[in-house]
Amino acid sequence: MDINRLQKQVDFIIEIDKLKDVYRQTFLINGKRNENDAEHSWHIAMIAILFQEYITDRSFDMARVLKMLLIHDLVEIDAGDTFAYDVEGNKDKKIREQAAAERLFGMLPSDQRDEFFELWNEFEKQITIESKIARAVDCFQPILHNYKTEGRAWKHHHVTHSQVIKRNKHIADASPVLWKYAKNMIDDALAKGYLE
Amino acid sequence: MDINRLQKQVDFIIEIDKLKDVYRQTFLINGKRNENDAEHSWHIAMIAILFQEYITDRSFDMARVLKMLLIHDLVEIDAGDTFAYDVEGNKDKKIREQAAAERLFGMLPSDQRDEFFELWNEFEKQITIESKIARAVDCFQPILHNYKTEGRAWKHHHVTHSQVIKRNKHIADASPVLWKYAKNMIDDALAKGYLE
Repeated sequence: MDINRLQKQVDFIIEIDKLKDVYRQTFLINGKRNENDAEHSWHIAMIAILFQEYITDRSFDMARVLKMLLIHDLVEIDAGDTFAYDVEGNKDKKIREQAAAERLFGMLPSDQRDEFFELWNEFEKQITIESKIARAVDCFQPILHNYKTEGRAWKHHHVTHSQVIKRNKHIADASPVLWKYAKNMIDDALAKGYLE
Repeated sequence: MDINRLQKQVDFIIEIDKLKDVYRQTFLINGKRNENDAEHSWHIAMIAILFQEYITDRSFDMARVLKMLLIHDLVEIDAGDTFAYDVEGNKDKKIREQAAAERLFGMLPSDQRDEFFELWNEFEKQITIESKIARAVDCFQPILHNYKTEGRAWKHHHVTHSQVIKRNKHIADASPVLWKYAKNMIDDALAKGYLE
């Protein structure tokens, strides 16, 4: 057993505790406070487990989807959470997140560094079915949270119905059923004045 | 597509958001606040991914370990977090958690209710390798958090070295390497006065 290797892994486990202190624009459904990235990551992994049956392409690797969901926001420890509809913040998001991935995943032994990079890049590239499922549930959840909090984060940022449609319609690539459900929430949010 | 089925699943996703509001005795490593169950569940799933190589029995189902870790604390939405070293609270813990599992998992369509019960019971029974791995990382993490916060939760509850050893030595069943590392932290915690 390589104690240096194990210590690197423990140091990484300590470092990623910071994800619990990265707050998102989305509120908890009880409205008490903003949600953080660690609990968001847990929630979307749960959603992937629960919605498995609605994925059009039934042959996919669930462990890979879960891993991708659990690690894909780690870069926000350094890069911060960029609100989905923040045009300015999204301009240099890629550069900030790439630097974050290099520092964070670089803490790990090289084989695990490579594995984490691969999972993170796979999510970003959106080619594999696993990455499409991961992105679908990652987007479904904040729609649900906004809908259940009367559009709290949407209203605060003056988000429009067409912005939400444009940003989330890819959900249909993983699951037309889930996109139909999400689209109904978005349309109803407009009718109820949660969206502009 | 059965809209009633999908709505049950969405209602469950909304309900389990409450896990983000169940606070544990353990503190974040930055010491800012107590950790909640949702972010704890995320963290231990990450630890399972990172420590996979230290599991003695190499043939196990990682997706099952991750699912077990992500769902096993859900019952605390109703039953609350019972501190590991709270003798009184642990007396009726099983009864409270069983009622919680029945209410919560009972919100799901019957096949998923059964699946969640099975995963939860498997974790509780500690027979399969997957459940032993899940319990090992579930226990490793609070030791690490206590160690890195100078025994904050341990000190508050006057926890002793022998209590921590007794409660956590099962980590060796999944991984002697990880138990050796954890044991070193526990021994050093005694030397440093983090434990009585």
